[in-house]
Amino acid sequence: MPKISNKGKNMPESPIRKLAPFAEIAKKKGHKVYHLNIGQPDIKTPEIAINAIKNINLTILEYSHSAGNESYRRKLSEFYKHQNVAVDYDDIIITTGGSEALLFALGTIMDQGDEIIIPEPFYANYSAFSTASGGSVVPVISTIDTGFALPSISEFEKLITPKTKAILICNPGNPTGYLYSKEEIMQLAALVKKYDIFLIADEVYREFIYDGDSHYSVMNIAGLEEHVIMVDSVSKRYSMCGARIGCLVSKNKEVMATAMKFAQARLSPPTVEQIACEAAIDTPQSYFDEVISEYRERRDTLISELNKIEGVIVTKPKAAFYCIAQLPVDNADIFAQWLLESYDLNGETVMVAPAAGFYSTPGMGLNQVRIAYVLKKEDLISAVRVLKEAIPIYNSNRLKKLIAAQ
Amino acid sequence: MPKISNKGKNMPESPIRKLAPFAEIAKKKGHKVYHLNIGQPDIKTPEIAINAIKNINLTILEYSHSAGNESYRRKLSEFYKHQNVAVDYDDIIITTGGSEALLFALGTIMDQGDEIIIPEPFYANYSAFSTASGGSVVPVISTIDTGFALPSISEFEKLITPKTKAILICNPGNPTGYLYSKEEIMQLAALVKKYDIFLIADEVYREFIYDGDSHYSVMNIAGLEEHVIMVDSVSKRYSMCGARIGCLVSKNKEVMATAMKFAQARLSPPTVEQIACEAAIDTPQSYFDEVISEYRERRDTLISELNKIEGVIVTKPKAAFYCIAQLPVDNADIFAQWLLESYDLNGETVMVAPAAGFYSTPGMGLNQVRIAYVLKKEDLISAVRVLKEAIPIYNSNRLKKLIAAQ
Repeated sequence: MPKISNKGKNMPESPIRKLAPFAEIAKKKGHKVYHLNIGQPDIKTPEIAINAIKNINLTILEYSHSAGNESYRRKLSEFYKHQNVAVDYDDIIITTGGSEALLFALGTIMDQGDEIIIPEPFYANYSAFSTASGGSVVPVISTIDTGFALPSISEFEKLITPKTKAILICNPGNPTGYLYSKEEIMQLAALVKKYDIFLIADEVYREFIYDGDSHYSVMNIAGLEEHVIMVDSVSKRYSMCGARIGCLVSKNKEVMATAMKFAQARLSPPTVEQIACEAAIDTPQSYFDEVISEYRERRDTLISELNKIEGVIVTKPKAAFYCIAQLPVDNADIFAQWLLESYDLNGETVMVAPAAGFYSTPGMGLNQVRIAYVLKKEDLISAVRVLKEAIPIYNSNRLKKLIAAQ
Repeated sequence: MPKISNKGKNMPESPIRKLAPFAEIAKKKGHKVYHLNIGQPDIKTPEIAINAIKNINLTILEYSHSAGNESYRRKLSEFYKHQNVAVDYDDIIITTGGSEALLFALGTIMDQGDEIIIPEPFYANYSAFSTASGGSVVPVISTIDTGFALPSISEFEKLITPKTKAILICNPGNPTGYLYSKEEIMQLAALVKKYDIFLIADEVYREFIYDGDSHYSVMNIAGLEEHVIMVDSVSKRYSMCGARIGCLVSKNKEVMATAMKFAQARLSPPTVEQIACEAAIDTPQSYFDEVISEYRERRDTLISELNKIEGVIVTKPKAAFYCIAQLPVDNADIFAQWLLESYDLNGETVMVAPAAGFYSTPGMGLNQVRIAYVLKKEDLISAVRVLKEAIPIYNSNRLKKLIAAQ
């Protein structure tokens, strides 16, 4: 049989996927599964976007420009300007999701054996995209006791080698919910300038900030225009994950010209969805006010409920719609599987994402889980009640097994 | 300034793109430009697909399954069975265009320095996708005098090394319009089996066959299930280039499991467009009958008109909607630019794709162009008339310049 590439072998599996069959088992038993594991919001897509799809006026579904429709890019640059992010339309390449923007960014800067430094825990697919580009991720550990604040710059500096091509941050953070301050961003800026490497920021959660803080975009760092690459997406902003529309943004002309070669090779992003996204830019502020208010309440509910469980450590996230919670269990992977396979509270159970999948350092995050608060408040309350009841039973079963094994 | 990757530098530019500014110049002069250079059909998308978009019944545009909607994959496998291609739904991963299917296929099998053998001239982006995967293309020359038939197997065999991971064919062929016979496919089958490498077939033009020939899919080769990867797309079939929906098909479970890791990393293909594609499978046969009949007439018109130009060499293509024509000019690249920049016939000119961009062997195809017959017959006649009048003027100008330079 012909051989698979090493790159293909090294591509990480989705950390959640291995639990999917167990969720199926739970559902086949008739159990209700609260999905705290996924980043698919239950928030409605703005009507203005759905209507743009319904009113589509095309007889031929043609390719768009490889960089995306110019009308959309122009409107998007206005959108950024309203957010005080100075971006021109030709600083933007429309991509097929934020995913493709990351692939283009890493393809543009990484060769075989190259490295990017990322604070961990991090979005698991960063590792996949680095592998696909022939490179690898070098993690800097951020910790739950600081709420996953930026590790000290000296920790980054220790890891920089001639192979280091970039520092990649997710701001606001998935899976941490942390929002980097302007001061933290400026520390990174000085570092990438010193070593003449890139700073890539995944800012797809920029709208989801809850306590009056403000988001400081890497695009606003004066004098760092050649070093900065921003990744964005409509997936979360308009609850349009399925549109697969994102963008790559940079003022570095060489980066953009190179990324355009990747963009031309794949011809164009999807046509219908771009039209919907262009329409979505006119979504009224009231939509966001409602959504942010809803998420803030969900966050407050979730954190307050989690804090009622003895032994749980969790920091209130400032942004995005995730948190990392440390549970009083030995192994969150085994616990998550057990919840689906062997446990229910009055016919209900919970699916969580074991956090080890968001770390690349082996052994990190073993008793942590990522929780996405993309469910209604009453469902979050029920889901945390399941966790609360389940943890002592799980621990008691584990203890019995350990004793039996002695 | 931080550095671009070598991979990024090596990514080929679109062979047509450099002409685009000259087409703009011609248009700004008020000249009508006949676009013989692009593969964007003017054929209408089936109404059933457009209506599925207009009647979309979603309030949240959610991610689909990473392998694509199961309902679509099931219907697609039925579609293939009707075409006598035995494919189960779980042999299919829905991709964002045929482009992504190629990227997944090459990522799954190629490491840094690996090679794939492709008969040239070939679709220029094969080279881009190989570069993006860290590998490179090794060309086997096919020639205009055989109508770009499969080169002899010994020519392939000479090029096989331990780095060779696959032979890639496009069948029917872009840019050649050649349709490989079952006998040619079986020769390739024996070769890939002998050397235990993959056979990748891009079959996106499978519907466009004009003279009662039949298409022999690589999926039908008995005993080669582990070696074969098929790439397909709806772009040409339903004139839905902008939908960006394709698929990767293989019976090799390891290939599929590996490609799924690439698929999961990018989350999902576009949701709305998948729904449109699922609906498009019910497109009535009459649609295809009309389309094929229209393309056959266009082909016949184009070839008959081209043959009226003294010194032109062209073979009647059997399939797809392209042909390679050899023109009596010294350099098709310079000629193509001159047509846009300096020539018009009663305010009309023509944009062609210089064929050198479809060869990876330097110096090949210098006096050849690719012509896409995606325009109405009367436009094709007018466009070829422009070429016919332009060639002697171009040659006479070149001669004058050469004499002046002496």
